[in-house]
Amino acid sequence: MKKESTYEKLVAFHGHSCPGLAMGYRMTKAALSFLGVKRAYDEELVAIVENDACGVDAVQYLSGCTFGKGNLVFKDYGKRVYTLYSRRSGRGVRVLYDSGSIPETISADWERHREWILSAPQDEILSLREVFIEEPERASVRESVRCDRCGEHVMATRTRRKDGRTLCIPCAEEETG
Amino acid sequence: MKKESTYEKLVAFHGHSCPGLAMGYRMTKAALSFLGVKRAYDEELVAIVENDACGVDAVQYLSGCTFGKGNLVFKDYGKRVYTLYSRRSGRGVRVLYDSGSIPETISADWERHREWILSAPQDEILSLREVFIEEPERASVRESVRCDRCGEHVMATRTRRKDGRTLCIPCAEEETG
Repeated sequence: MKKESTYEKLVAFHGHSCPGLAMGYRMTKAALSFLGVKRAYDEELVAIVENDACGVDAVQYLSGCTFGKGNLVFKDYGKRVYTLYSRRSGRGVRVLYDSGSIPETISADWERHREWILSAPQDEILSLREVFIEEPERASVRESVRCDRCGEHVMATRTRRKDGRTLCIPCAEEETG
Repeated sequence: MKKESTYEKLVAFHGHSCPGLAMGYRMTKAALSFLGVKRAYDEELVAIVENDACGVDAVQYLSGCTFGKGNLVFKDYGKRVYTLYSRRSGRGVRVLYDSGSIPETISADWERHREWILSAPQDEILSLREVFIEEPERASVRESVRCDRCGEHVMATRTRRKDGRTLCIPCAEEETG
């Protein structure tokens, strides 16, 4: 049996192969290599992503900066930019994808576009530069309380006070109507 | 070579095994089974998660509702609740995790807690009920323009106008100071 490539495994995670995923694959691989780091087991890497498109699944899968671990920070700027930061070295890298050089006959064809991105020379599609940023905060665990209306657990920092009761947001909003 | 279990593959994606991941694993498996559906290749499933803790990586990995595909909706309620919705059937299920029955000697021990969650009878830790929700919007692709200051591409819907120029948010904020 042929060993699955990293890209094939990534496609299995994302669900399908597309130009956006291919972009994210090239960007994340380049950023990891620039910093000389491997996938994060815990929070040793942080990714700041400036869009929420397909490519972010490549960030999650390849760098280990995932939504659930709290080391994936989303800035809703609509830009093809990721910044990867290593807590160990304190170094950060900003990666920009720009396919300025792509022929239109290719960009109009989904499959050819994807293959082009996967095989293009790095300096034709990516700009990388070292950046100096403040270390992002680590994810923290918060105390949990029970909502006085539905009785379900809720993070204490996400409650609302109403008539002397502590409510979760959905209950508070339902009462307000 | 022993075949890797689904939980072991999930741990490899998340980076480590912890009680939060085990909760997410049980919740997502139960929700998929309730709806009688498999992992989403594209956007045929949508997950609405009411927290951003470790367990959400189980949602992403097991249900295919990922941050990058746009079918993972985050509501910052701080509750141990996921809602999974199938576009095909129009059915939704709400899953609540509540470990009311866990002995304190176990919950205080990270590893024992995790193993307890993985093996507890479903009705001791989860409440599932069918819910009727409006179909969430699908992810869409937006037009891209160039920022008049940095020259980088940016989604047209994420630009700011300033002195007759079209700027990306970071440039607009830098100029404002």
